Amino acid sequence: MRAVLPDVRARVSPSPRRRRVRPTLTYALSTTGTGMSDLAAAREYTDLAPLFAPRSVALVGASDQGERFGTRVFRQLVNFGFRGPIYPVNPRARSLLGRECYASVSALPQTPDHVGIVVATERAFDVLEECAARGVPFATVYSGGFAETGTAEGRERQARLSAFARRTGMRIMGPNCNGVINFVDAFAMASTGAIGGPRRAPGNIGVVSHSGGLGQINVMWRAQEIGLGISYEASIGNEADLDSIDFARFMLRSPATDVVLMAIEGVKDGARLLDLAREAAEREKPIVVLKFGRTAAGSRAAASHTGMIAGADDIFDAAFRQFGLIRVAETNELYEMAILLRTRRWPKGRRAASAAATGGNIVQLADIGESLGIEWPQYGPDTQAKLAALMPGYGTVSNPTDMTSLATGEPENFRRALATIADDPAIDVLTPIFAFVKRTDIERGADLVRACAKPAAMLWVGGCTDDRVFGPKDLIEAGTPVYRNALPCLRAVRAAADFGALVREYKAGLRQPLRPAAADAGAARAVLAQAGERLSEREAKAALGAYGLPVTRELLARDADEAVAHARALGGAVAIKIDSPDIAHKTEAGAIRLGVQGDGAVERAFAAVLQSARRFSPRAAISGVLVQEMAAPGVEMMLGMVRDPVFGPVIAAGLGGIHVEVLRDIAYRIAPVTADEARRMLRELRGYKLLEGVRGAPPADIEALVEAIVRLSWFAYELGAEIVELDINPLVVFERGAGVRVIDALVVKDMDGTGAR
Amino acid sequence: MRAVLPDVRARVSPSPRRRRVRPTLTYALSTTGTGMSDLAAAREYTDLAPLFAPRSVALVGASDQGERFGTRVFRQLVNFGFRGPIYPVNPRARSLLGRECYASVSALPQTPDHVGIVVATERAFDVLEECAARGVPFATVYSGGFAETGTAEGRERQARLSAFARRTGMRIMGPNCNGVINFVDAFAMASTGAIGGPRRAPGNIGVVSHSGGLGQINVMWRAQEIGLGISYEASIGNEADLDSIDFARFMLRSPATDVVLMAIEGVKDGARLLDLAREAAEREKPIVVLKFGRTAAGSRAAASHTGMIAGADDIFDAAFRQFGLIRVAETNELYEMAILLRTRRWPKGRRAASAAATGGNIVQLADIGESLGIEWPQYGPDTQAKLAALMPGYGTVSNPTDMTSLATGEPENFRRALATIADDPAIDVLTPIFAFVKRTDIERGADLVRACAKPAAMLWVGGCTDDRVFGPKDLIEAGTPVYRNALPCLRAVRAAADFGALVREYKAGLRQPLRPAAADAGAARAVLAQAGERLSEREAKAALGAYGLPVTRELLARDADEAVAHARALGGAVAIKIDSPDIAHKTEAGAIRLGVQGDGAVERAFAAVLQSARRFSPRAAISGVLVQEMAAPGVEMMLGMVRDPVFGPVIAAGLGGIHVEVLRDIAYRIAPVTADEARRMLRELRGYKLLEGVRGAPPADIEALVEAIVRLSWFAYELGAEIVELDINPLVVFERGAGVRVIDALVVKDMDGTGAR
Repeated sequence: MRAVLPDVRARVSPSPRRRRVRPTLTYALSTTGTGMSDLAAAREYTDLAPLFAPRSVALVGASDQGERFGTRVFRQLVNFGFRGPIYPVNPRARSLLGRECYASVSALPQTPDHVGIVVATERAFDVLEECAARGVPFATVYSGGFAETGTAEGRERQARLSAFARRTGMRIMGPNCNGVINFVDAFAMASTGAIGGPRRAPGNIGVVSHSGGLGQINVMWRAQEIGLGISYEASIGNEADLDSIDFARFMLRSPATDVVLMAIEGVKDGARLLDLAREAAEREKPIVVLKFGRTAAGSRAAASHTGMIAGADDIFDAAFRQFGLIRVAETNELYEMAILLRTRRWPKGRRAASAAATGGNIVQLADIGESLGIEWPQYGPDTQAKLAALMPGYGTVSNPTDMTSLATGEPENFRRALATIADDPAIDVLTPIFAFVKRTDIERGADLVRACAKPAAMLWVGGCTDDRVFGPKDLIEAGTPVYRNALPCLRAVRAAADFGALVREYKAGLRQPLRPAAADAGAARAVLAQAGERLSEREAKAALGAYGLPVTRELLARDADEAVAHARALGGAVAIKIDSPDIAHKTEAGAIRLGVQGDGAVERAFAAVLQSARRFSPRAAISGVLVQEMAAPGVEMMLGMVRDPVFGPVIAAGLGGIHVEVLRDIAYRIAPVTADEARRMLRELRGYKLLEGVRGAPPADIEALVEAIVRLSWFAYELGAEIVELDINPLVVFERGAGVRVIDALVVKDMDGTGAR
Repeated sequence: MRAVLPDVRARVSPSPRRRRVRPTLTYALSTTGTGMSDLAAAREYTDLAPLFAPRSVALVGASDQGERFGTRVFRQLVNFGFRGPIYPVNPRARSLLGRECYASVSALPQTPDHVGIVVATERAFDVLEECAARGVPFATVYSGGFAETGTAEGRERQARLSAFARRTGMRIMGPNCNGVINFVDAFAMASTGAIGGPRRAPGNIGVVSHSGGLGQINVMWRAQEIGLGISYEASIGNEADLDSIDFARFMLRSPATDVVLMAIEGVKDGARLLDLAREAAEREKPIVVLKFGRTAAGSRAAASHTGMIAGADDIFDAAFRQFGLIRVAETNELYEMAILLRTRRWPKGRRAASAAATGGNIVQLADIGESLGIEWPQYGPDTQAKLAALMPGYGTVSNPTDMTSLATGEPENFRRALATIADDPAIDVLTPIFAFVKRTDIERGADLVRACAKPAAMLWVGGCTDDRVFGPKDLIEAGTPVYRNALPCLRAVRAAADFGALVREYKAGLRQPLRPAAADAGAARAVLAQAGERLSEREAKAALGAYGLPVTRELLARDADEAVAHARALGGAVAIKIDSPDIAHKTEAGAIRLGVQGDGAVERAFAAVLQSARRFSPRAAISGVLVQEMAAPGVEMMLGMVRDPVFGPVIAAGLGGIHVEVLRDIAYRIAPVTADEARRMLRELRGYKLLEGVRGAPPADIEALVEAIVRLSWFAYELGAEIVELDINPLVVFERGAGVRVIDALVVKDMDGTGAR
């Protein structure tokens, strides 16, 4: 067998521009008018219990020779403690490790729930056919030689494998994978050295990983090394059939798992990921995700700014934030998050408190907390008074609290101070710090953290004075959240608070995007149907206007007289612009005049605009010349939509001009969004202060902008299947109360239904 | 005794606006014309060897009762293994822990090199006087009750202590400190539980910390726990006399130390810190700094934008970068950096390579490396060919290299692949990854890393298959740089490469700022001398012009006729501006007209500007009206100077308008700077692309801008003592080759020599 460790790069999504939108997304998109909730109906789910805990299991390609893959998997399958029948299958052996060996799956005395396949690539298909004939429900294909090779042959093999699963209904893990490890039921079929020692006790943390090495070693084993317990680990490989969502969903629904850690390189189907995230919130079981490809800046060839700029990872990042998946940057951060999250206690907010006998650690904690958005509010007067009594002579007690030597010699003082702080209604979460202490004192501290009225995590930076081998691992094994360093501790605190807020919002129905009134999909669709591939400015605004987006008043003039009449009708100064689906950037073409006033000026502008357009693009189709009201000045925004191969229609917002194009200060969200989500989106922008009003400028109408974003998101969600790109540039945001106006827009239709650009 | 752990917040620098510039800085500032090298002459240095390794030592306030501070320090002083005489001093005891006890310092049989003082605050002064009378050279005051209390009494006590040291020449550590620990010579006088066990072997890492808890536990003990060896640790407290620079300098000069870790809340004297950094580069011993207060955004009340915006920590951050001090964010990162840096092997660049048998780890490493500016170049053809021979059937081998199962069973293959990669001239540094391996294989891997022709660090993410207790600590103790996680590993690689570049630049003299020709300090001083507190625009530009900064041509008009004559002399359109030291922001006052052309227009503009100015500020002193050439359009920059209480004159640069004021996209440097430093400064700006030319705009004259920054930095360095604030806003950067022009400038003189604003 060639490669058992997945060549993971081969699985990274190809660049969006070369990729077709998947049927699942088209399905998601065609669900119009009711929002995300419909996706719940799409929760297909196969219970993976027989895969993780089969009644009997067979391993085809089992061996007992040397350090071959088949030997390592078989040896561990036998040694891990599985109590059901294990059937080695290998025509060249009579018995293996004292177990009777069978020549084929057909020859087995019973039908196993789960068959592992470690034979050569081409032989795997024969074995699978045998399994199907025998009625085996689950198979794991460890063998490589599929899509991970990057060859046409490998891809073809993988397509065959997918087709096989669909045809037979057999569910397949892999290929090119390293199987499952189940600590709850003592079943493991995997080659990794990470389960080589005595079997570890199970815990409530599930792990799903594309790569075997990362999932089994960097996450599972390392988590166990610091005292955390794992329920299930799945190293899932190429996902020809079962994918990361299937495995995560199984763990989420298992009572043995309270938090799921995922190390993935991407997902195939954004809608299923988002539905998984929703189920995680419903069940109050957080999912922590490490997704690679953070720095691979995607760049697309596109007519719209949005399309040009959106990097695939920016959209993943936005999706994770939007749907409450907790993102981390390295494998160790996955299990570090779990130290606290596995307790499933959610702080009501980000208001933390801490106390320590070491002032330096207090300063460090406050500093790092502030950088993570953790607040350290002042204690209320009651707490102040009680703490002052415990710390005579110290005046006002600040938070986090340096208890100085008053805590060092007096563990009881420290205990009482923490209990007092926990009672303060201004405090949501506690992170007491311990340095060098006696074993009884640290154990009492751990009791306090576990029994605390508020969620709490211990930061133990030092050791034990009277028991040099006693350490954080002992406390973590006993269920206490204990951290060595402030950064992972406070990151977890922040994540727990955010997850708590998400859960509350889901329960209150605040996460459900509501379709706005006066959004006429039929009217917008009619505009699209009449237009060519690229809508003219007027058509684009008509389509957006149908969704209630405020657009400039404008009239199409076919000759100079008509232009003059229109200008009079609009009153005041007007803008004169060419209206052509073939001229996307009017300024570049010189086909726009602003602030035109008076009949003569309008006549001249009409002629000039027409002439410039013809000179710039002699073959451009020209619908006429737009006479448009001049918008009052305001903050210029760019809103847009891009179709993501994973997540479908995604909306983007940024301040206009250099903010988007040069500074790349853009926020993304998967459509549709709630008003709250639109507000969060705007607050992510570095330039947000410009909307609040700076340098004497009045605050802009942020609420009208929020509504425009919500409307755009529904436009994108409901018509996204028919559109490949959309730019609103600029949308002007007037003073508070004065609304917004779409000044110009660019819409490109999807002519072949593929989303290819 | 009240508090032995320093209340570190009390030592954080007060907000700059309330603080006077320290005499040392004034000293640094008055060294004009020759640049930083003069500071070398200011290296006062007291050899701290008798403090760290005294021939004999006394502890005043020693005890053997309970867990009192004096008991803990004395017990550890005795137990740590010090071979010289130890004299406990305590009038209430005859002997302590079997040692003869003395009633006073005067009664000691010999004069100790180092006296520790743990008595009550007020008694400390009596003891110190006794020590001085006896000729004791070094004392450590552990007692609290000084400036850390935040009381006037405490501050007064500390001032007395400083004065005592100056008067007697005795050098004092503390007060409110936790003493020194010396593993090289087995001497420790400290209360910490972190040295409670058997004495650890010494290593080549020095630790300096304001806080005892942080330095002794979070850094020293934790470093030892992962297998690193410490030479010296100093917990320095309030710095009434000896400060962090003194201790770091001692360690830097000791052959026992190769890397110094500092956990500080600030420094008192920027010039001494920068000189320390220079010595670190000269000795090729890196200094890693953790400085708190990262998120406390300083905000100053000031007339200039620069002054208003510069946060104290931004300036620290810039200084660390400028002078090659390696900054980290938490205590664990200090010793994680040291794992690699203690080997003192500097990669020639950031071009890294890695190989592993686990594909997932390769993807993770590449991803994290990219985010840190690590490059993974393609291997050269020779390397490719050799690797292809080792990995048959894999086609092009990429970097980092997934060796798949070809490495798992074949350690010799892996070894050969690494040796081949190390020979590739395109590679500067290696970070091979190991997962689960046999002990002999990991040990061979460690040999390879240590003996590698290029600097190398091992990333060992898993464990040992045949020796479950063997781990990274064993290899680190043996001197191998071994990391558990990719992020700290690659951060250290990046820091080592950057430090190597710094060392090379110092050696080549490229770090020495060169005073530019045609910078006439005398002329600029003369302008300053004639001006009032606030210079008018014309005066400010005259001063800057004396340093060779290109300013707009302009002439002062006292009446309309003169204005007309000046406009004719300048030719073309002109700007008409009020020239008044009392009107800093002309646009706000309506006292500026742009693009004025023709005699009549100039006359009208003259009158209008004067009228607006008088209406805006009836009592403003008006020197006249400036008639100024109109600058061609270009990229508008803001350059400025601010006087920092620690670092003295600091220059700032940002793109004009919202970039500085709203987006806070500003780069800082301590004056003066080299041209290279000015270039690095500009490249830090998020908006740098605007200088390179975007949206069809031509590239700006970056080299002329660099020269302007260098000239401004010398202006700031040489005249900074006489100026509190300076803004050039805007400086227009024309197309490449066309130079820059100062359009407007604001200078505020320091009238009382304190820098107070």
